[in-house]
Amino acid sequence: MFGNTLYAEKIQRALEQSNFPSTPANLYDPVRYMLALSGKRIRPLLVLLGADLFNIENIADAIPASLAIEYFHNFSLVHDDIMDNAPLRRGKGAVHKKWNENIAILSGDALLVKAYEQLALVKVEYVPELLRIFNKLAIEVCEGQQYDMDFEAIDSVTQQQYIEMIRLKTSVLLGGALEMGATVANATLVDRAHIYNFGVNLGIAFQLQDDILDVYGDPSTFGKQIAGDIIANKKTILHILLKSKLENDDVQEFEVLLTNRDMASDEKITRMKNLYQSYHVLQEASGLKEKYTHSAYESLQKVNVSEPQKKELYSLADNLMRRTQ
Amino acid sequence: MFGNTLYAEKIQRALEQSNFPSTPANLYDPVRYMLALSGKRIRPLLVLLGADLFNIENIADAIPASLAIEYFHNFSLVHDDIMDNAPLRRGKGAVHKKWNENIAILSGDALLVKAYEQLALVKVEYVPELLRIFNKLAIEVCEGQQYDMDFEAIDSVTQQQYIEMIRLKTSVLLGGALEMGATVANATLVDRAHIYNFGVNLGIAFQLQDDILDVYGDPSTFGKQIAGDIIANKKTILHILLKSKLENDDVQEFEVLLTNRDMASDEKITRMKNLYQSYHVLQEASGLKEKYTHSAYESLQKVNVSEPQKKELYSLADNLMRRTQ
Repeated sequence: MFGNTLYAEKIQRALEQSNFPSTPANLYDPVRYMLALSGKRIRPLLVLLGADLFNIENIADAIPASLAIEYFHNFSLVHDDIMDNAPLRRGKGAVHKKWNENIAILSGDALLVKAYEQLALVKVEYVPELLRIFNKLAIEVCEGQQYDMDFEAIDSVTQQQYIEMIRLKTSVLLGGALEMGATVANATLVDRAHIYNFGVNLGIAFQLQDDILDVYGDPSTFGKQIAGDIIANKKTILHILLKSKLENDDVQEFEVLLTNRDMASDEKITRMKNLYQSYHVLQEASGLKEKYTHSAYESLQKVNVSEPQKKELYSLADNLMRRTQ
Repeated sequence: MFGNTLYAEKIQRALEQSNFPSTPANLYDPVRYMLALSGKRIRPLLVLLGADLFNIENIADAIPASLAIEYFHNFSLVHDDIMDNAPLRRGKGAVHKKWNENIAILSGDALLVKAYEQLALVKVEYVPELLRIFNKLAIEVCEGQQYDMDFEAIDSVTQQQYIEMIRLKTSVLLGGALEMGATVANATLVDRAHIYNFGVNLGIAFQLQDDILDVYGDPSTFGKQIAGDIIANKKTILHILLKSKLENDDVQEFEVLLTNRDMASDEKITRMKNLYQSYHVLQEASGLKEKYTHSAYESLQKVNVSEPQKKELYSLADNLMRRTQ
């Protein structure tokens, strides 16, 4: 669990107190199951930290928005797992496997509605604005997921397209979470924009780092199969940067690595990493990551509250971006 | 198209002006496709009639709520069609067939979010209350769909369970539509409850009638395969009432009709209708329908506006319930 323990506990307690009906069991059991899988709860924490940043009087007033974000995140996981045909979620059976696809579609829908139910519990004067912020991030996440699926099927994805996709699919949720917290703490529109940009840029940097660590991370701390993205021909930032630079025989070598299904994984990884090295792909990807990290910190600096007040968010960002190797 | 032509045109124009982004095309093309399939648009009309009943000053103020209801209805159709593996929707390819399941899941999600976007466009003082009404009907529709799927798999469904299922799956949307219209017209809580009950009871009566017409309707006006529900062993109100009454050898006869896959459809229909007749199932189902129709009219009578003001809604209800034979 990242960051502030007190807030993390508040979120955990609120999640445990979520009182879903017992029936229909096939609708609500999957909802309970998903929310009980231990995630990092970083998104609901961002709501509370966004509220805290602007000195919210009573942090409890930010809890419904925080649950809305966590429910929404879980809605998107349940539906994405169907679309990606992912068997596992956080090491346990994904809903569409543990139950079935229909139940996963419908309990995902229910989680999305339950997210909006939480929005309706926010102090009434903030409901219209929170609804607008939430709708915007929600439709953008759908767009990002669609681009992600589209990109699997098309041959060439540009760096710009890829970054726009991850912005929509993963980053606007972080920015929106912070902005919702800021909004219930009555922050100004300008400060809300800064904190939103902090979250979005941090999210993009984090996703770029995730792509880099998949290949260059320390297997003992990264916790995923090393270079799984290379094995799966995933169009990560490394893949996209490389493809845009390939010259001469390397075009052919890249094609062989993508298409030769008889090649051993180890060999495929080694030869792909050789290509990455020839074209300084790691350096360029890291440079991009740094650029977005820098933009994130810059946005946070612009927020009109005292620097000590920003300590938690700096430390959370450091924590997220320090995960190298 | 039912009822008020002026309002029907306003809804049609608003739907045509719905400005969905062009990309990602795989997300928004299915949304446009669904909304262009010509439906009766009865649900968005109910929003406008609910607002009109309480003398809303400017009917345009009820349009966003009206679109929210129509988008929601289409969201539920897209997802239900996946779950029911229905090939067609309004005579055209269902989204999951015309595109694919993943696209249907995600564009359904987008339609749900777009419904909430419309809610955010309502006059700001009504947003929190509309959000509550909408959340309630939305989660209930999910519950109803889950019960419907559950009932397919279980052996015996009681009359009470069945009516509760159709209340949730189809009727609360009608009641909620009317209540949303009443709310933006600033109706009292008591009147809102009456108009909601009118819609819910009318919806239940309509669904019961639909079950009856499937077997006893005039094929030339009903527009569906006659007795399709008998052929498919669908647990309609007729099926449920019959099953609860069967005695002696008829238990066996019913079982044969449900399980003998070699029997010709015509014979199956005739023998099932014989059972219905022996146990006066049509009379009992019609009695139930009348009961809910009566409750609907009673609720409408209780609404504290002049009787002439209720003319449109009486006429709409008459229209819906006169569809016999």
